[in-house]
Amino acid sequence: MAALQARRVLLTGSNRGIGLELVRQLLGGPHPPTHVFATCRDPEGERGKELRDLASKHPNLVLVKLDVANPSAIVNAAKIVEEKLNGAGLNLLINNAGIFTPVSLETVDSEEMIRAYKTNAVGPLLMAQAFLPLLKKAAQDSKEKRLSCNKAAIINISTLLGSIERTPESYFKPVISYRCSKAALNMLTRCQALTYSEAGILCVALHPGWVKTDMGTQEADLTVDTSVRGLLSVLPILSEKHSGMLLNWEGKAIPW
Amino acid sequence: MAALQARRVLLTGSNRGIGLELVRQLLGGPHPPTHVFATCRDPEGERGKELRDLASKHPNLVLVKLDVANPSAIVNAAKIVEEKLNGAGLNLLINNAGIFTPVSLETVDSEEMIRAYKTNAVGPLLMAQAFLPLLKKAAQDSKEKRLSCNKAAIINISTLLGSIERTPESYFKPVISYRCSKAALNMLTRCQALTYSEAGILCVALHPGWVKTDMGTQEADLTVDTSVRGLLSVLPILSEKHSGMLLNWEGKAIPW
Repeated sequence: MAALQARRVLLTGSNRGIGLELVRQLLGGPHPPTHVFATCRDPEGERGKELRDLASKHPNLVLVKLDVANPSAIVNAAKIVEEKLNGAGLNLLINNAGIFTPVSLETVDSEEMIRAYKTNAVGPLLMAQAFLPLLKKAAQDSKEKRLSCNKAAIINISTLLGSIERTPESYFKPVISYRCSKAALNMLTRCQALTYSEAGILCVALHPGWVKTDMGTQEADLTVDTSVRGLLSVLPILSEKHSGMLLNWEGKAIPW
Repeated sequence: MAALQARRVLLTGSNRGIGLELVRQLLGGPHPPTHVFATCRDPEGERGKELRDLASKHPNLVLVKLDVANPSAIVNAAKIVEEKLNGAGLNLLINNAGIFTPVSLETVDSEEMIRAYKTNAVGPLLMAQAFLPLLKKAAQDSKEKRLSCNKAAIINISTLLGSIERTPESYFKPVISYRCSKAALNMLTRCQALTYSEAGILCVALHPGWVKTDMGTQEADLTVDTSVRGLLSVLPILSEKHSGMLLNWEGKAIPW
């Protein structure tokens, strides 16, 4: 099986859960990237400790402060990353940061709807806008003809719970603000694929499974290790034919 | 063909375009409702003139000031309607108000994404929350066993442009903020159907077609008259089997 060979990777929400495990496995893989930009809201705070421990052992890990709900913070982070890359492009942007609140149609309010939308849908849109020049640069510098994660890609971490078609089977967890924001993220991914493929950038949404994390709780099906091994084995097989799709951690398509 | 017999109907965004024509055709139909609550942001202003002219001829038309992007205005409007109904329920809530801005992935920003989401997705959610007691009342008072628009229903005016599956064929109009908000509205409709059917309330999303209105421009396919005649012929045939679906003005299902 092909391993991921993307040289320069950036992830959001990387201080815990799936994001942190992605950083760990990327650094420990057979072809570790030359640069892993791990972003989170507070890399210097208590919740950034595990990332800082990793960074002390891996000089290719760069921690960058970034709240994806803050548009100007996204622009600032892109400037920092551009400087660090020193003329090189960014191969892989993984929009992993997300929030999840257990609200139903009865309990949700306007503020919660907008809070979830800002982080889960608008954040990934603004991230792609801000990092687009670096992704385009990576695509131009690549010798690969086909779209791939090694060349230039935007991966939006989405969810089965954003599938409108499959809502009835998981509706025991209504999570309205999360579902609506992730359905919008799926639409965004499809639009990004249609817009950015001409520039050589692959855009795909991935469902990591229901994972034992702070967000997924211990009731969940999968360990974070299994989920992330799955995601990292799917990334290198992605190509044009997956452009604008939603796939799970095993590479299976999920209907909208 | 069965005609719509809903007695008490409320519409948002009813001062122009599809909303205004829905009001006109409801009032001029074979079984006009006893109450048509036509809401819009400024019924007393210049843009409410056509509604006021109609109200002067139709005592069953009640104009109510309402901006669906304002949560407290929604709660206030529900109180006003409850008083006017004087113990009766509301049979049909048509969430028609929507905004549309011609932005692409390059030109959209955070403010526009959130502005569209507030009106096109969060507004319909809050409308259903606020009018739920009146919709439940109508369902309880009805002798009909099956879900129907005559008994109690929420109709969310959505769009083909919110179909993720069918995005490629219409992407010559990217309208990102609109598409993402309407994909979220489709998810909301599915969740509302799963939540509210137990209370006897039918929830369906309808695509009115591409209509010659201020929003649709004169390039569009359909006249507002044709679109609204279509919508009003679809409403009376809706039942359990359409619960949580997206249908067009001819009653044909659209994939998510």
